[in-house]
Amino acid sequence: MSDTPKDLEALIDLMARLPGLGPRSARRAVLHLLKKRGQVMAPLADAMTQVAATARDCLTCGNIGTSDICAICASEKRRNGQICVVEDVADLWAMERGGAFRGRYHVLGGTLSALDAVGPEELRIPRLMARLEEEEVTEVILALNATVDGQTTAHYIADEITDRGISVTSLAQGVPIGGELDYLDDGTISAALKARKTI
Amino acid sequence: MSDTPKDLEALIDLMARLPGLGPRSARRAVLHLLKKRGQVMAPLADAMTQVAATARDCLTCGNIGTSDICAICASEKRRNGQICVVEDVADLWAMERGGAFRGRYHVLGGTLSALDAVGPEELRIPRLMARLEEEEVTEVILALNATVDGQTTAHYIADEITDRGISVTSLAQGVPIGGELDYLDDGTISAALKARKTI
Repeated sequence: MSDTPKDLEALIDLMARLPGLGPRSARRAVLHLLKKRGQVMAPLADAMTQVAATARDCLTCGNIGTSDICAICASEKRRNGQICVVEDVADLWAMERGGAFRGRYHVLGGTLSALDAVGPEELRIPRLMARLEEEEVTEVILALNATVDGQTTAHYIADEITDRGISVTSLAQGVPIGGELDYLDDGTISAALKARKTI
Repeated sequence: MSDTPKDLEALIDLMARLPGLGPRSARRAVLHLLKKRGQVMAPLADAMTQVAATARDCLTCGNIGTSDICAICASEKRRNGQICVVEDVADLWAMERGGAFRGRYHVLGGTLSALDAVGPEELRIPRLMARLEEEEVTEVILALNATVDGQTTAHYIADEITDRGISVTSLAQGVPIGGELDYLDDGTISAALKARKTI
């Protein structure tokens, strides 16, 4: 697009780098923004500038917030003593949407991976161990993804925590709510059968 | 997400309004931005602020640019005398990507529609007629979409232009390059057959 203004092209290029958007959908999104310059584009630009300037990782748990201690770590309404360990901020958000957990979090920032040379020091595992010393923790809930790397990381952390009098738990595995057996993989069905409950 | 900072939630809500993004993909995009605050988020916010402040509709043709007269209308390299009429800036971009047209454009800003009460005055049709008086135009190319409203608008404009000694043309209809007959609709095949050429 030879005769498109430079800054418009730059904006489209930057938008196209977002996950879920490609060159075509970035153009569509930018065109939509251009047509609603006042109502959508200016507020979005302002919101983004604002967040880019204020967002930071929580020094305690690694969650992303707008202050050095995130809203969850700072809240008095959340229960102390329970720490839910997640890989990523996205997982923390997913747990929060569930709304069932009212304790504190710890965001590792990834999983251990021999292939990618990610060791405990690259994650927030030392920080987690420090928190177990500092805070009166009674339970660590490992809410890591059911992938090989996720489970390796869970085992590593569980091993590190033993002999401290802290119970280490993980999320139950089984049939998702509303899930149909016919569409489930064999591993999930076996896990759900092994963990069956009396009604 | 009760404990998510307000401005983060506001940003996700605004992103979710973009075409092609929903709440889930907006969260993913924002999380990606948050992780690359310096490299991606700040430049994107700056580019958006910049474009929101400078973007405006070209007074001549309705294209979106950064000055009162867009780059195409202002360019001395584009041919005068040919005006390509398109519905939307997206169509102008599509034509420019094709790269075959080196004349000027006129962006209507929509199509005539009895249902939506869009008459010629709501589009840039009067402005097009004024340009035909002001500029020495020899050909008007109607590159409107092959929809009912697009074709209605094309016929209306063609009728308005008659008796001015200006030739009015439209894009050829036929088999797309690389298109397979088996996957084409009947209307396109009929149109391609009617417009067949000797090799």
